[in-house]
Amino acid sequence: MTRSATLPEVSRAEGAAAPAGALGLRRAALLGATGYVGQEFLRLARAHSRIEIVALGVREGDGRTAPERFTSLDPAFSPAVCGMSELEGLVASGACDLVVACLPHGTWKEIQRRHPGLAAAPQTVDLSSDHRDGHGGFAYGLPEAFRTEIARSQRVANPGCYATAAALALIPAAEAGWLRGPVAVSALSGVSGAGRVPQLRTSFVEAEGGAWAYRAGTEHAHVAEIERTLARVSGVSPPIGFVPQVVPMARGILLTAFAPLKDSIAPAMARERYASRYVNEPFIRLLEDGRWPETRAVRGSNRCDLALTTLHDGRTLLVTAALDNLVKGAAGQAIQNLNLMNGWPETTGLAVDGAPW
Amino acid sequence: MTRSATLPEVSRAEGAAAPAGALGLRRAALLGATGYVGQEFLRLARAHSRIEIVALGVREGDGRTAPERFTSLDPAFSPAVCGMSELEGLVASGACDLVVACLPHGTWKEIQRRHPGLAAAPQTVDLSSDHRDGHGGFAYGLPEAFRTEIARSQRVANPGCYATAAALALIPAAEAGWLRGPVAVSALSGVSGAGRVPQLRTSFVEAEGGAWAYRAGTEHAHVAEIERTLARVSGVSPPIGFVPQVVPMARGILLTAFAPLKDSIAPAMARERYASRYVNEPFIRLLEDGRWPETRAVRGSNRCDLALTTLHDGRTLLVTAALDNLVKGAAGQAIQNLNLMNGWPETTGLAVDGAPW
Amino acid sequence: MTRSATLPEVSRAEGAAAPAGALGLRRAALLGATGYVGQEFLRLARAHSRIEIVALGVREGDGRTAPERFTSLDPAFSPAVCGMSELEGLVASGACDLVVACLPHGTWKEIQRRHPGLAAAPQTVDLSSDHRDGHGGFAYGLPEAFRTEIARSQRVANPGCYATAAALALIPAAEAGWLRGPVAVSALSGVSGAGRVPQLRTSFVEAEGGAWAYRAGTEHAHVAEIERTLARVSGVSPPIGFVPQVVPMARGILLTAFAPLKDSIAPAMARERYASRYVNEPFIRLLEDGRWPETRAVRGSNRCDLALTTLHDGRTLLVTAALDNLVKGAAGQAIQNLNLMNGWPETTGLAVDGAPW
Amino acid sequence: MTRSATLPEVSRAEGAAAPAGALGLRRAALLGATGYVGQEFLRLARAHSRIEIVALGVREGDGRTAPERFTSLDPAFSPAVCGMSELEGLVASGACDLVVACLPHGTWKEIQRRHPGLAAAPQTVDLSSDHRDGHGGFAYGLPEAFRTEIARSQRVANPGCYATAAALALIPAAEAGWLRGPVAVSALSGVSGAGRVPQLRTSFVEAEGGAWAYRAGTEHAHVAEIERTLARVSGVSPPIGFVPQVVPMARGILLTAFAPLKDSIAPAMARERYASRYVNEPFIRLLEDGRWPETRAVRGSNRCDLALTTLHDGRTLLVTAALDNLVKGAAGQAIQNLNLMNGWPETTGLAVDGAPW
Repeated sequence: MTRSATLPEVSRAEGAAAPAGALGLRRAALLGATGYVGQEFLRLARAHSRIEIVALGVREGDGRTAPERFTSLDPAFSPAVCGMSELEGLVASGACDLVVACLPHGTWKEIQRRHPGLAAAPQTVDLSSDHRDGHGGFAYGLPEAFRTEIARSQRVANPGCYATAAALALIPAAEAGWLRGPVAVSALSGVSGAGRVPQLRTSFVEAEGGAWAYRAGTEHAHVAEIERTLARVSGVSPPIGFVPQVVPMARGILLTAFAPLKDSIAPAMARERYASRYVNEPFIRLLEDGRWPETRAVRGSNRCDLALTTLHDGRTLLVTAALDNLVKGAAGQAIQNLNLMNGWPETTGLAVDGAPW
Repeated sequence: MTRSATLPEVSRAEGAAAPAGALGLRRAALLGATGYVGQEFLRLARAHSRIEIVALGVREGDGRTAPERFTSLDPAFSPAVCGMSELEGLVASGACDLVVACLPHGTWKEIQRRHPGLAAAPQTVDLSSDHRDGHGGFAYGLPEAFRTEIARSQRVANPGCYATAAALALIPAAEAGWLRGPVAVSALSGVSGAGRVPQLRTSFVEAEGGAWAYRAGTEHAHVAEIERTLARVSGVSPPIGFVPQVVPMARGILLTAFAPLKDSIAPAMARERYASRYVNEPFIRLLEDGRWPETRAVRGSNRCDLALTTLHDGRTLLVTAALDNLVKGAAGQAIQNLNLMNGWPETTGLAVDGAPW
Repeated sequence: MTRSATLPEVSRAEGAAAPAGALGLRRAALLGATGYVGQEFLRLARAHSRIEIVALGVREGDGRTAPERFTSLDPAFSPAVCGMSELEGLVASGACDLVVACLPHGTWKEIQRRHPGLAAAPQTVDLSSDHRDGHGGFAYGLPEAFRTEIARSQRVANPGCYATAAALALIPAAEAGWLRGPVAVSALSGVSGAGRVPQLRTSFVEAEGGAWAYRAGTEHAHVAEIERTLARVSGVSPPIGFVPQVVPMARGILLTAFAPLKDSIAPAMARERYASRYVNEPFIRLLEDGRWPETRAVRGSNRCDLALTTLHDGRTLLVTAALDNLVKGAAGQAIQNLNLMNGWPETTGLAVDGAPW
Repeated sequence: MTRSATLPEVSRAEGAAAPAGALGLRRAALLGATGYVGQEFLRLARAHSRIEIVALGVREGDGRTAPERFTSLDPAFSPAVCGMSELEGLVASGACDLVVACLPHGTWKEIQRRHPGLAAAPQTVDLSSDHRDGHGGFAYGLPEAFRTEIARSQRVANPGCYATAAALALIPAAEAGWLRGPVAVSALSGVSGAGRVPQLRTSFVEAEGGAWAYRAGTEHAHVAEIERTLARVSGVSPPIGFVPQVVPMARGILLTAFAPLKDSIAPAMARERYASRYVNEPFIRLLEDGRWPETRAVRGSNRCDLALTTLHDGRTLLVTAALDNLVKGAAGQAIQNLNLMNGWPETTGLAVDGAPW
């Protein structure tokens, strides 16, 4: 039995949507259930007391039921499998009041055009990158930085996994106005980050036993997302240099940031700053001095583990962060956002423990 | 949100221990929490509404708290870490009324001798092989075969992982009196089956990328355990030949049994027999014709997936089974047994869904 | 420096093709170089002193050179990349006198029809299953059983990986006339056995951390291939039951066979039979009593490791075999066959050592 | 058959030791054959035409022969297994004229004290870190920077794997005088980098499926080694910040360096500098623009693959490097050094091709 830790009270803004129905249930349609993020959302939502998955959206139905599609799930779980027009009808009739989109980037626009009723659902969480720049009235769903805004919103754009890790690693330093010059970011991701469509590059024989870098530099869309977040919290962002790397594990991100500092900061002072910034955050854990993060410790959990120090007479900040790209980096953070949007306790349905193997 | 399937009503025998306390909580001491089975029990028990882990038993305390020992867990989870004498005191005072032992084989005897008060706890589940032959008044904890006996017992010996898979694969045929001559059993296990003590054999570099067989034949302790179970359910057991193999995955068992039959049985008839035998079992899934089990589908779940057919004009039964060696093969089955022993719904705290990656 | 072991003299039949050219070089065209078997043949042929890869055949050229296609290879290696008609020309002109085909099953027939000059090359080794039943005048390339026939042939059909392991495990018992009734065969294969075309089933995230069975029973084409070989060496084959399983490693096969015996055979007698049958085989290693095979020990090697005993009062023979599916199960055995066909020492260019990690 | 590329002529210094014996063979004793580096040296030396392994040194003999110790090797390979005093005798008698030490750091000193005759062998390559600071008259064995010095030496200290990757990534920029301020280095290593002694941390179940950082900062011994090399080639080194990370693969290093530059350098100019610096190096490959390294491409090879660009208006140099930690990072580089020390072609016995799976 889990004894709930006393969590910080999350101030819920006036005007947030009242939880629907007598039991405060959200009846959700999930778009993109076959991808890794969609499957993880399904897994988490099924363990959540306030979310009921009423429909899975598919581009084209093939007559297969949900248990036939998802053989690892309990065969007793069998939501409707619907085309987009059918979903639009569910929303119109009130049978579905939440749309969660785990779709390839760019797909939402098309849905909005063809099925405006779907895009007009009472609540929407979009896990693609389509609304992360804030257009379309979507709040940016990083609770540790924008909790109040999220709690007031009915439309949330869920951050990318790399951007979540980088932002959590740098926000306390950015808010303190410590950062100077370019920040060097190196990040490892598990193979699920590359999506579920079969490719030679991510086939078992090609991916096992090796690591590779890709699209290194500044062009990656994640770079702009990280810089935007740092600018939002501190007015200005240093330029980011970014090297994403894929390593042979299914899930997890391990990120390292080296940030030149304006002034010399002692390691203990840097740690103190991070500790006080995150003291009330249920999903951030600061490791004690001398320990460094590992992805296994946060596997399946919505936690982000951080460790930091300063080097070179305190002129370089070194931060490392570990999170599960499918949980805190995607589906878990979506649940966290839904908890905020609906006024439910922020940790509802989310594991703090990791499942290391 | 999970909609509970309608589960078969589990008849609870008269005389089973009344759930302790007002809320029907069991306050458990866990021995052997650092091994893989112990860690899995910890994970499952923390998600169980009726079990509270009040103490972790250690041979020798080193002053480290639970969060320091188990870095993937929620730091807010911090049961007492106790030596054996201290645990004995907790039992004597009534602060602990359940002992779960995930210890190396043979350790329990020593505990019984030195700490008889511990061995006399109101309820005990022993996950070692020490009591699987039935001595000491322990029921054999395979619910699919011995549910009533377990529900009446306060002492249960949890089956081995290989034996669970083999028994579930063969019981319907054995009970039907179909089996003739030696049964050939080949089984793959994930590396966690070899325990957590560091060995060269199970180090990453030596275990990754390869598979190996070991102790093939009839001498393995699991062979006797399988034969004993088949004899219990059908009066007689065919001799078993067994080849355990370790493959580079953390968890899971995939077992194949070829059994010569007395009479020719058509594939559909064999499948029908299995379907009717297991129709009410919440944790057994029979795959449709043409599909064969995979360990990922049951990863983290308490389910055992089975598929079968007959070959050679119906004279050979071929059954394959997949389960998670740490869940249905160990800690999950222990929870299932505790549910039966305490009259709680049999599926409490146990996943039917697998977490395939 | 490797000190060559004294190898058994391989009797080379009269009439075998004289090694071509002054240096006895074979100038080979390789069809299907992009698959795993083709890549492995390339790797082995490049280390072979008598084989020169002069051309890689492709269905449709895209202008990319060999180094652009195979980025792990020495950029200095750059054979011609040719369409089929161009290859036919190379054969006609004598610039190429060996065709090695690592193509999908069924492709060779089409090539034969459209490019008969290619199919008429002086020597051909076909690694597909197209000619394994002996039609088209192809010898069956299992040297341990058909060495003389291979040495006399200019057309060899290379055996399948599963069939090689099963045949090597059972031939001594079959030749001795020991086998009775159905043989139960369970085999694990690395993921490269499923080919290189991207599929969801063999993508990293789906294949890592799990094992699965497929097409279990008697319908698998490999069953017929095994039965054919046993019938060839002993006049009759018992029926085979076969369960192929895929485990999360890139390469390797670990096979287990349980064979009912006509008479009771003591373990030592069975081992003695196998030892004397294989005493002169450079690529068969019989493990000492009590040790069981592992795939790592033969990784990258052309060796097959075997271990055996008898069970149930000597009435069941238990044999396990390990080989590398891409080497002894495919490209290495093709090299071994080419050595025989050309009168070169049988072990030329082939490793006996494994590269376990 | 491999067509040798025309390699740059390696100028061999006057006074280098004449190759021993009529055939120019070196008769080597290998200390530390049971570790991963030792095993890899064994594998490479057996494929080398000029090196014969005559003895394996062990701390204490247990009567087991070499084939009994190394079950993946050809059983016909059976060098003497000797204690240190016995080895000393082999050196004194001239039966062994090369000592290769793959020992834990610090062990050599003890050997030198107790068995001075061993330390006085005609040639020595030490793969530990004991002599990397240049004391004891050992040349630093990084051929791409110190080729002439190595070719003149009879005592070579082989560089560490991380230091080799970092030095090769930064030498062209350092020699050009481009570097300013602290360099941020992040590096991934396969698990074999942690050694072969069983530890919980590197056991399969704990290491599979996760990545972890350790000893991040400036204290790691590798930091000093990298700074020393950069100072040697350019007179001064910028401070290095270093984050080593272990990822779930057996071998390979993937390293990323971000280096602030004194002046703005265009990407093409930076690439040109690297291309001309390494044009004659047989084991350095510069990837074309837009491609980034992967460890698989160099698996088993002595190659180091590099890719680079500049960011932030040319003020940050970004370089990534991939090599096999056991080959170019250890045993292969030792062979390369031995080739130089003995006047053999520098690439003798070393693969340029990688074996990606």
